[in-house]
Amino acid sequence: MIEGQEVRRQAGRLRYAMAGGGAGAFIGDVHRKSIAMDGAAEIVAGCFSRSFQNTLSTGASLGIARDRLYASPEEMIRAEAGRPDRIDFVAVVTPNNSHYPISRLALENGFHVVCEKPMTTSGRDAEDLGRLAAAKDLFFCVAYAYSGYPMVKHVREMVSRGELGAIRFISAEYPQDWLATPLEKTGQKQAAWRADPDFAGISNCVGDIGSHIENVVSRITGFEIESLLARLDRFGAGRVLDDNASIMVNYKGGARGLFWSSQIAVGHDNGLRVRIYGSKASVEWLQECPNQLRISYVDKPTEMVSRGRDRLHPRAQAFSRLPSGHPEGYFECFANLYSTFLGALGKRNSGEPLSADDLDFPNAGDGIRGVRFIETCVKSSKNGAVWIDF
Amino acid sequence: MIEGQEVRRQAGRLRYAMAGGGAGAFIGDVHRKSIAMDGAAEIVAGCFSRSFQNTLSTGASLGIARDRLYASPEEMIRAEAGRPDRIDFVAVVTPNNSHYPISRLALENGFHVVCEKPMTTSGRDAEDLGRLAAAKDLFFCVAYAYSGYPMVKHVREMVSRGELGAIRFISAEYPQDWLATPLEKTGQKQAAWRADPDFAGISNCVGDIGSHIENVVSRITGFEIESLLARLDRFGAGRVLDDNASIMVNYKGGARGLFWSSQIAVGHDNGLRVRIYGSKASVEWLQECPNQLRISYVDKPTEMVSRGRDRLHPRAQAFSRLPSGHPEGYFECFANLYSTFLGALGKRNSGEPLSADDLDFPNAGDGIRGVRFIETCVKSSKNGAVWIDF
Amino acid sequence: MIEGQEVRRQAGRLRYAMAGGGAGAFIGDVHRKSIAMDGAAEIVAGCFSRSFQNTLSTGASLGIARDRLYASPEEMIRAEAGRPDRIDFVAVVTPNNSHYPISRLALENGFHVVCEKPMTTSGRDAEDLGRLAAAKDLFFCVAYAYSGYPMVKHVREMVSRGELGAIRFISAEYPQDWLATPLEKTGQKQAAWRADPDFAGISNCVGDIGSHIENVVSRITGFEIESLLARLDRFGAGRVLDDNASIMVNYKGGARGLFWSSQIAVGHDNGLRVRIYGSKASVEWLQECPNQLRISYVDKPTEMVSRGRDRLHPRAQAFSRLPSGHPEGYFECFANLYSTFLGALGKRNSGEPLSADDLDFPNAGDGIRGVRFIETCVKSSKNGAVWIDF
Amino acid sequence: MIEGQEVRRQAGRLRYAMAGGGAGAFIGDVHRKSIAMDGAAEIVAGCFSRSFQNTLSTGASLGIARDRLYASPEEMIRAEAGRPDRIDFVAVVTPNNSHYPISRLALENGFHVVCEKPMTTSGRDAEDLGRLAAAKDLFFCVAYAYSGYPMVKHVREMVSRGELGAIRFISAEYPQDWLATPLEKTGQKQAAWRADPDFAGISNCVGDIGSHIENVVSRITGFEIESLLARLDRFGAGRVLDDNASIMVNYKGGARGLFWSSQIAVGHDNGLRVRIYGSKASVEWLQECPNQLRISYVDKPTEMVSRGRDRLHPRAQAFSRLPSGHPEGYFECFANLYSTFLGALGKRNSGEPLSADDLDFPNAGDGIRGVRFIETCVKSSKNGAVWIDF
Repeated sequence: MIEGQEVRRQAGRLRYAMAGGGAGAFIGDVHRKSIAMDGAAEIVAGCFSRSFQNTLSTGASLGIARDRLYASPEEMIRAEAGRPDRIDFVAVVTPNNSHYPISRLALENGFHVVCEKPMTTSGRDAEDLGRLAAAKDLFFCVAYAYSGYPMVKHVREMVSRGELGAIRFISAEYPQDWLATPLEKTGQKQAAWRADPDFAGISNCVGDIGSHIENVVSRITGFEIESLLARLDRFGAGRVLDDNASIMVNYKGGARGLFWSSQIAVGHDNGLRVRIYGSKASVEWLQECPNQLRISYVDKPTEMVSRGRDRLHPRAQAFSRLPSGHPEGYFECFANLYSTFLGALGKRNSGEPLSADDLDFPNAGDGIRGVRFIETCVKSSKNGAVWIDF
Repeated sequence: MIEGQEVRRQAGRLRYAMAGGGAGAFIGDVHRKSIAMDGAAEIVAGCFSRSFQNTLSTGASLGIARDRLYASPEEMIRAEAGRPDRIDFVAVVTPNNSHYPISRLALENGFHVVCEKPMTTSGRDAEDLGRLAAAKDLFFCVAYAYSGYPMVKHVREMVSRGELGAIRFISAEYPQDWLATPLEKTGQKQAAWRADPDFAGISNCVGDIGSHIENVVSRITGFEIESLLARLDRFGAGRVLDDNASIMVNYKGGARGLFWSSQIAVGHDNGLRVRIYGSKASVEWLQECPNQLRISYVDKPTEMVSRGRDRLHPRAQAFSRLPSGHPEGYFECFANLYSTFLGALGKRNSGEPLSADDLDFPNAGDGIRGVRFIETCVKSSKNGAVWIDF
Repeated sequence: MIEGQEVRRQAGRLRYAMAGGGAGAFIGDVHRKSIAMDGAAEIVAGCFSRSFQNTLSTGASLGIARDRLYASPEEMIRAEAGRPDRIDFVAVVTPNNSHYPISRLALENGFHVVCEKPMTTSGRDAEDLGRLAAAKDLFFCVAYAYSGYPMVKHVREMVSRGELGAIRFISAEYPQDWLATPLEKTGQKQAAWRADPDFAGISNCVGDIGSHIENVVSRITGFEIESLLARLDRFGAGRVLDDNASIMVNYKGGARGLFWSSQIAVGHDNGLRVRIYGSKASVEWLQECPNQLRISYVDKPTEMVSRGRDRLHPRAQAFSRLPSGHPEGYFECFANLYSTFLGALGKRNSGEPLSADDLDFPNAGDGIRGVRFIETCVKSSKNGAVWIDF
Repeated sequence: MIEGQEVRRQAGRLRYAMAGGGAGAFIGDVHRKSIAMDGAAEIVAGCFSRSFQNTLSTGASLGIARDRLYASPEEMIRAEAGRPDRIDFVAVVTPNNSHYPISRLALENGFHVVCEKPMTTSGRDAEDLGRLAAAKDLFFCVAYAYSGYPMVKHVREMVSRGELGAIRFISAEYPQDWLATPLEKTGQKQAAWRADPDFAGISNCVGDIGSHIENVVSRITGFEIESLLARLDRFGAGRVLDDNASIMVNYKGGARGLFWSSQIAVGHDNGLRVRIYGSKASVEWLQECPNQLRISYVDKPTEMVSRGRDRLHPRAQAFSRLPSGHPEGYFECFANLYSTFLGALGKRNSGEPLSADDLDFPNAGDGIRGVRFIETCVKSSKNGAVWIDF
């Protein structure tokens, strides 16, 4: 009976391994809990840390078999590739600098990949991954999770249906304050690697959160950047990488963007806010209150739209899990990203055709564009905050 | 290997069955997803509906073995009681009227119980369940989930440490608007049973949401009601049960409460709001923005406390899962209720001693008091909204 | 030329005297500045305090001629009555206990009256003033100023046009925190007289602010109270009068009200909030953000209406003075009360007919009803918080 | 007696004339009502419009003597200069292009001036006025009124006392939506002149509202702009002047600014918002909720400071007129500007020495800097949004 049960599970549930996400990390646990919530995939292997001890204890607490806990991501990928009950995909949640080699090895071994943002620390590497995934016909998902919120999907629908009229101006910001003091010098793990170019790459603030702005706006509007100008600041004493960034963007077609991301903005937690102004209407959405959307019109009073109460466009409504007033949050937006990704994987595995909606998760294209955005911002700033064609 | 893995899982993961929660229901899925998120228990059996077809399809989608899907809760409990891999507890998420018989049978068969609120439709039944659980030495958890929010726990700590001074006045409200129109006549399942005394019992609005006010205030303050007065209204045409309620409460010790719950309050989603006024400070908490807490002082500016950013009291901090600004919501508050309940169950099963903190989940005492609150409100209102000793 | 100018002014501007409002008082200055803003009346006489020294210095700062500064209100009224350039009306802004004798004397001498609320400290006195004003055909305005806000007028129009459907429930509150500590024992003048029955009458909290709730709701809905129940609390040590009040109201026609006023609600400044729930829509208005109105509908998203931006009903629009986003506040709501009162007085003086809109200011009827409301609340509370017919 | 009263008034009250502000205008009435509220000055002459008919009717409604209503500002200034009861100052509230000639003539004739912003349409003219006012030893006040709000003064005190630590970043915005549609083509007077370079000068959006950002930030921080970059947009069809502007500012000393002003931002009324981030704390102030201030700290919870309730620094507290929760608004901020200006004028007329606090109103220096800001923004934008030294 137990074996039969196991077989049934194999049919319904996908299996994955995780690189990164041990004790002291943040985002790996979010991936795991968000996947678990919907039950469509099961973690069966992992290398959670450069410390094997950390991997062993993390793995034990997750109920992973001892023989599928690995000392290195490379070992994990090679070993899993040889198993009959091999994993379907790898979730890469390590610091930025190792996204590329781990993801590359996973692709080479035929595994789909979900990778944290930014995809890589260089545009060349990102493009290489994109080419490889295409060549191997494998899914590559980049975890720009915010597009998983129902309200973000609703705004995208509004824009594409012309409900805002012609988009004129986009004001977006992503202020935090956790690096207002030199937290990276206290041993706090999250801060330490993000402030270190060896792990983070060429940017901290734009790389970690500024690129979320780029992705959310891009996924909502579909606009392409024509040129941009960025002024990156380093306010924290002794910092090598940026902790504050002001960015002007000119979009093809005439829309304008003004963006600000910051890690030293005292009083802000995780204040991603997107405001899109069209000729007929505008919207304002704040990640910290993700269940509400403010819609203003040129010719009638402003509306406060509430998820669960007010009818969203079908593509957004489909991702609403709870009745009105029962707040959904960060885990659920992540779960929506995974439910799309895993749904597509499931269909693919069973040979079903895939629609555009099925594939509506941030992919290698998003990842490549995101890395190029970071590189262009850094280049603009280094040259005196000048305009650079994108 | 597979068998070995199964054994290891049995050691670490608890097993449960669910009564209720099939397609068209709301709260059952919340229980399941919240449990799954933390992975400490696994659903292995169920009777999800009076329609066996619904149970079969729901069970299949959850990956439950066909032979553990049952036509009735009674059959389920008796069958599970006889299995070697029997469940640890039953989650009862049916309409109110069947809470009592299902829970009773579960207790009689030695199963722990998690039961939706209100515990039963009569105080006598509730007390009976309480006595039986005590006699059998079984856990009985009533799913007053809101006390699972970290901020609610923080407020309780503030009160018990005297940070508000002497509590003077409590203003609490729970307005919704989903029954502002006669939804129960449209076939909507949730509305239909709640408006029907045969399923809901003697009250709709106080039973469904007013009793949440009672529980949250009670768990925060520990105050005992001395007397109360309730005016129950039926604004929806043809309604037998209340859809709006105004309640005055006198607490032992001199504090006063003023409560309002409503299902016809147009514009409110699920607006549980609790405001507690002490001689030194006050707090305001709103379920729809659960990550924030407003604290006001007699002698300094009002503070906005943010979960994840500002340090909460340890008992609250322990239930904070995400960094600041990454919103937690309804699923997470439910998951906190379950993590406490399952943690206690795990410790008990392994013979560890249980502290008061381990047992910090709403129990039969909460359930009994909640049912008595409903009965007293109905009695007061029937007699012309007069004062009744509690 | 100067004389000619003076004559012209006499034609256009009304003249008034003030009783109360010297240094250390609050509301008198609000009356004066609000009148001055529109320039339709000029203060020419006053007895601003029981201290003649205070009257002299206040009068000098206001540019009032020395011979029109008086040692007592009685002297003022009698002297002004004999002047050829006599005043048109008296503004009575003294503590509650002297409203009656001063107003009575003013009426007896043929002066119109604007009197602060509550009109008197007993219902008998209020009715006496109402009868006298009617017999003398004089205007009697009671300064329930909040109905002067454009948004309050807009809500009244919405209700009367049926835009909310049938009104079901009214939730209103008026919390303050300035008496959370025993301020009246520190010599603070405002607190001292309000806590003293000799000056305030039978109630502090209901008299000072609870009666504002009654008036705003009454002016908006036109509903008549059928019965009420009140629980008055005295949380401040040694207080003789109430500092917190919970009130249930049954309106003729079936609507229900639940009111709370408090002076000990830590964290609240002057939080008059009115929420009216109808079968089709609801409104929420907060005095501290008076330029906005929240309107919710059973069948579409909630609207945030902004004064100046969104078109209000004409009767409300007429009182909007500034473009959108240029906040109007308390002075302007008072100025609106006076612009109506003075407009009516001007028309009357010039023999023009007066419409209902011209007379749209709180009058003796409002004053009498307000005093009866206070008396009924006190009576209910004294009898154990029981229902009393109104 | 009447003559004596008149003489006394002359001693205490200042007299002024107004240029502009007739029917159809907006800001002139604000000046007049704000002055009237405090009663320290009296309007005695005016040329309110290019239409003498408008001037006559406006003047009559204000009770101004017929012989002091003039067909042109020039005639007014020359005639008033020759009167024994001549005015003390001229309030210039005409469209931008006439600020210079009217103000110049007023100064030449020995009158103090209060002029609307921007001071002139060219930096050369502004400097000329500044020189002339200095040479003549006359007051020149530019009506950047927002610095009159108590909270703005409080923030300035906080900054100067180091309570925010080192200022790092300033985010300020001033979005409106009244020109989201081509209102200037409908005959609306306010829109028509602002969109017309002949009346508005070289800029609409930066000139009208962007310069308010510059002034508020400058008055709060005292920082000097080192260089700036501006991208000015014209989204409205056929517009010659800007209706949206994105501006980056580098301040001497290392602070950075990012500003946005817009007249096409659908959903915004008059949303001036200033956020200042220091190394120790930050503040956020929103003109539409001017009585509140949000203060965040690196090491404790965010505070919501309320005017009237929480003690402000003395220089700010002095401008608070009402108790907590009684909202002050736009008229009061204007009245504060005038109370400072008129207080200084009164002291000067009576030969009293003037302190820095006495002279705390925006003066010719503010005006000159404001015009240079506009010119530099236009120049930057015209050259492709490049950096320009200020």
